[in-house]
Amino acid sequence: MTDLLLNECELRFQLYELLDTEALLQRPRYAEHDRGVFDASLTTARQIAAELFAPHNHKGDANEPTFDGERVHMIAETKVAWDAFAQAGFLAAHHDFADGGLQLPEVILRACMAYFNAANISTVAYSFLSIGATNLLRAFASPPLLERFLAPMLDGRFSGTMALTEPGQGSALGDLRTLARPAENGTYRIFGQKMFISGGDHELTENIVHMVLARIEGAPAGTKGISLFLVPKFLVNADGSVGARNDVALAGLLHKMGYRNTTSTVLSFGEHDGAVGYLVGEEHQGLSYMFQMMNEARIGVGLGAASLAYQSYIHALDYARQRPQGRLPGNKNPAAPQVRIIEHADVRRMLLQQKVYAEGSLALCLYASSLVEDAHTATTALARNNAGELLDLLTPVVKTYPSRYGLLASEIGVQVLGGAGYTREYPLEQYYRDNRLNPIHEGTEGIQAIDLLGRKLGPRGGDGYRLFTAEVLATLLTANSDPHCAPLAALLADALRVLEQVTASLQTQVTADANLGMANATPYLDLFGRVVVGWIWLRQALLASRALGSGAGDSDADFYQGKLQAAHYYMTWELASLESQGRLLTEANHVAYYMQDRWF
Amino acid sequence: MTDLLLNECELRFQLYELLDTEALLQRPRYAEHDRGVFDASLTTARQIAAELFAPHNHKGDANEPTFDGERVHMIAETKVAWDAFAQAGFLAAHHDFADGGLQLPEVILRACMAYFNAANISTVAYSFLSIGATNLLRAFASPPLLERFLAPMLDGRFSGTMALTEPGQGSALGDLRTLARPAENGTYRIFGQKMFISGGDHELTENIVHMVLARIEGAPAGTKGISLFLVPKFLVNADGSVGARNDVALAGLLHKMGYRNTTSTVLSFGEHDGAVGYLVGEEHQGLSYMFQMMNEARIGVGLGAASLAYQSYIHALDYARQRPQGRLPGNKNPAAPQVRIIEHADVRRMLLQQKVYAEGSLALCLYASSLVEDAHTATTALARNNAGELLDLLTPVVKTYPSRYGLLASEIGVQVLGGAGYTREYPLEQYYRDNRLNPIHEGTEGIQAIDLLGRKLGPRGGDGYRLFTAEVLATLLTANSDPHCAPLAALLADALRVLEQVTASLQTQVTADANLGMANATPYLDLFGRVVVGWIWLRQALLASRALGSGAGDSDADFYQGKLQAAHYYMTWELASLESQGRLLTEANHVAYYMQDRWF
Repeated sequence: MTDLLLNECELRFQLYELLDTEALLQRPRYAEHDRGVFDASLTTARQIAAELFAPHNHKGDANEPTFDGERVHMIAETKVAWDAFAQAGFLAAHHDFADGGLQLPEVILRACMAYFNAANISTVAYSFLSIGATNLLRAFASPPLLERFLAPMLDGRFSGTMALTEPGQGSALGDLRTLARPAENGTYRIFGQKMFISGGDHELTENIVHMVLARIEGAPAGTKGISLFLVPKFLVNADGSVGARNDVALAGLLHKMGYRNTTSTVLSFGEHDGAVGYLVGEEHQGLSYMFQMMNEARIGVGLGAASLAYQSYIHALDYARQRPQGRLPGNKNPAAPQVRIIEHADVRRMLLQQKVYAEGSLALCLYASSLVEDAHTATTALARNNAGELLDLLTPVVKTYPSRYGLLASEIGVQVLGGAGYTREYPLEQYYRDNRLNPIHEGTEGIQAIDLLGRKLGPRGGDGYRLFTAEVLATLLTANSDPHCAPLAALLADALRVLEQVTASLQTQVTADANLGMANATPYLDLFGRVVVGWIWLRQALLASRALGSGAGDSDADFYQGKLQAAHYYMTWELASLESQGRLLTEANHVAYYMQDRWF
Repeated sequence: MTDLLLNECELRFQLYELLDTEALLQRPRYAEHDRGVFDASLTTARQIAAELFAPHNHKGDANEPTFDGERVHMIAETKVAWDAFAQAGFLAAHHDFADGGLQLPEVILRACMAYFNAANISTVAYSFLSIGATNLLRAFASPPLLERFLAPMLDGRFSGTMALTEPGQGSALGDLRTLARPAENGTYRIFGQKMFISGGDHELTENIVHMVLARIEGAPAGTKGISLFLVPKFLVNADGSVGARNDVALAGLLHKMGYRNTTSTVLSFGEHDGAVGYLVGEEHQGLSYMFQMMNEARIGVGLGAASLAYQSYIHALDYARQRPQGRLPGNKNPAAPQVRIIEHADVRRMLLQQKVYAEGSLALCLYASSLVEDAHTATTALARNNAGELLDLLTPVVKTYPSRYGLLASEIGVQVLGGAGYTREYPLEQYYRDNRLNPIHEGTEGIQAIDLLGRKLGPRGGDGYRLFTAEVLATLLTANSDPHCAPLAALLADALRVLEQVTASLQTQVTADANLGMANATPYLDLFGRVVVGWIWLRQALLASRALGSGAGDSDADFYQGKLQAAHYYMTWELASLESQGRLLTEANHVAYYMQDRWF
């Protein structure tokens, strides 16, 4: 199993060639580390993932958690994996030494997470959510709250969730109705129902800390009246010991297509006297706080999709290298031996498509993680600001591209295996089912599109966009003088030109009429994403070309040749339809917008 | 549930406007029927589908068949459904009155099947396979075999399967190794293993009749040495009674992602003395016979995919019309009421995309069924021949387009429902899982592509292609003088021009080098399919335009407006990328072909 868990070469290339992760060692925050610490973290992650997560990936899918009305039951391996993850320090990996953390860079933590995602995405989801909840708490909670909750969340005795969605509002957070009524000592009583809360109940930890969005009695309607509360499953005594059960009940589990070992819950707050909740930060600022967690989660979802795509790719590749079947079209001799299916052109085409989606997505997500890092620890204010602007712009792309194309990579993986791919005897169908969640949670594709076009490129946006196009132009300039990359750069330059035209046109359209102008936001997000990943591939091609030029050894040469060929495939096949797609947008094709309900 | 089972209006439109099904009544074979008989068959199918198939669709998925080492167990509703289907005469619907059939046209039977597919595709799969096996027997078996097996297969006491695939050869039928050894009285003993045999074991019927491909001892290698055998699960005595168990054993069940209530089996023939098998037709002609069944099954798979796509579409539409959420982009007032999600432009876009895929696929498959009909019963030899040529050309498209785009319609259906779509509490995720089989079985997409480019358009092909382009040109000519359709026709004419260029170029490429020339067969099949369905949509638009021009009533007008808008969407969005895709093919872009195994 270990052999088919991501790919160490690929990850090393992405971290140390495509990104200059080693340069982080120059920053004061990481002065006590060296490259060996980074590599050891990756090795530990890979090992725990291979030994304690991957082996029960299928079992957790086939035996999803159940609720007997009192307790949630799940396979025992889940807790073993949670504990190992916590004990190795990954819940606290990027936190300060002072808080008991390992003070590792964000990008290293995320590369470690890629291993866990690849091994068992639904078991590691508990950790993923807890890390997000802890970050939120760390950023906005008052010292007394931190004192009581931070340490047990960092060491894994408590876990955390994010409780946003309600049955009645779905994506429209502004309409949420969960109520917070002021009570004694500055606490609140919470009443309401939350839905699709991942990890909302389980017995992996002594306590579960829900980060809940609610509306304080009398607060304004809409997004401006939302506050953030910490609502634990069990109250915590002043000495830190776990006390009485809070008024939070599991109303039921939802049964998903995939991601099955993660509980998806409906939670009832305040069926009796109200659940005790603690305000985090200021009143009515909850949504802006939560956006920190959501943005982080969006990169995490992209990374999850990329990791599953990668698993689908390497499993399909492994099968295609072993499975003999048929002969090449030119060979009509039935006595000739069968070829392995990787020798069939169509299978290679499918594998190459998987490769560009999986590696492009993974690189995109690690790049985004490096921006998170830079936004916090880059050495100049300008660099920190620029990283933040770029990250802000790209977050919807980082969430969406891997979710859409990573899912496609999983789908193609099923196809490479054919009938075998469709059976539960092979892991492909599970990757595909698991991956189907990613275009939905943490903001659907449509929501990301509105975010990109309406907010990030809206009247007050645009700085990130200018930074992004400048980055692409800089890469193009370098690539123009590289013999392997110049033709690829020319194709990406065309794509960038299309993006520029479309963006300007849509900004005008949105200004003229918000409803009409936003109608094609999703195809625009798709177009944008393909240009971004084109840029990622050109950067990879440049490194490969240089490595080949400076005489890389045999197996390295194969690796870099593969990168060049994949980049070539990407620029010719994946960008081919960009111009026609762009034309539909600049010409404001609104056929779908004008489709009437009663005409369906 | 009944309300969400396909759409009677749509089916009526397709059968009686888009196709001239009523004209079949003029043919001698159908002289005793009238339109009322056709409609009554459809009503019966819809009713049985709604009452006895749809209600256990979810249950059969959640409780798939199991094998205890002796017997296969499945939910009891399956047999009730099988019996009702048989008793209503659908197993014999298109057979002669003389054989006890209803002598219904192929296209009516297939429209009935669409209801059953929509209601419960994995329960009706047993009937679907049995119909195919019976047709095969009817066409090629000797009178004594027919006498013993035909009647019980037509009345549902016996069921049938097709047993082609083996563990070692997958799609490469020429390599199959199942052996037939001549035995007493002209019978054979069969030895070997078959895999992925749908409906290969169950207790729905007294007996199961396997149509098995095997190689007679000493037969030539490859496809030229394959013969077809009838191998029953139980031997049948001369008086027609069911006798001893034959030497056919269920080695195990495969566990699929979807289609779960259909058993997928590994069958062992001849673990003891050899399974008794009866040669069907001539020695070594098995594959050519089986192609009849496969071609029929390929249309059936397309129709299954189309039916699931349609279900995904109407369930998503129903949800989108009821579910309130959020407000339109121009509305910043949080106190304003929520809108139903169909009012969001992005949701309408998704629904319209589903509509063009689902209705386009359904129309394509019913058109293909009308070609099957015409190939048998058209009144002139020329018409029969032309229908056969067209059918032959289009079969890979009819199999593939609905499998690819119908699956996409199911995928979009999940997305329209968001989190709900991902749960098993709603039917969308099952449609999606069920539909994922269709690009695989009865010849994968890659196999269909080789069939189209290598065989149908190869050196000996081309008649069907010329007939097809002539049909499209005729439709374009008519559409050019229609005010609504002329702009749509112009777009389809561009697409046809691309197809013509690409086809000519690929034929040259294949002649020059079979391996290289076939490398892009799959993208070519996709391009071809999109043009074919574009033609289907233009024909629908023409009818809609005429109906609107002659003053259709209100609800009819809505229906036709929807058709026009959908056709408009199809021509602008779905055909947009055709030219750039075509350019990759005419320029012989072989990046994927030249990707090396060791570079992955």
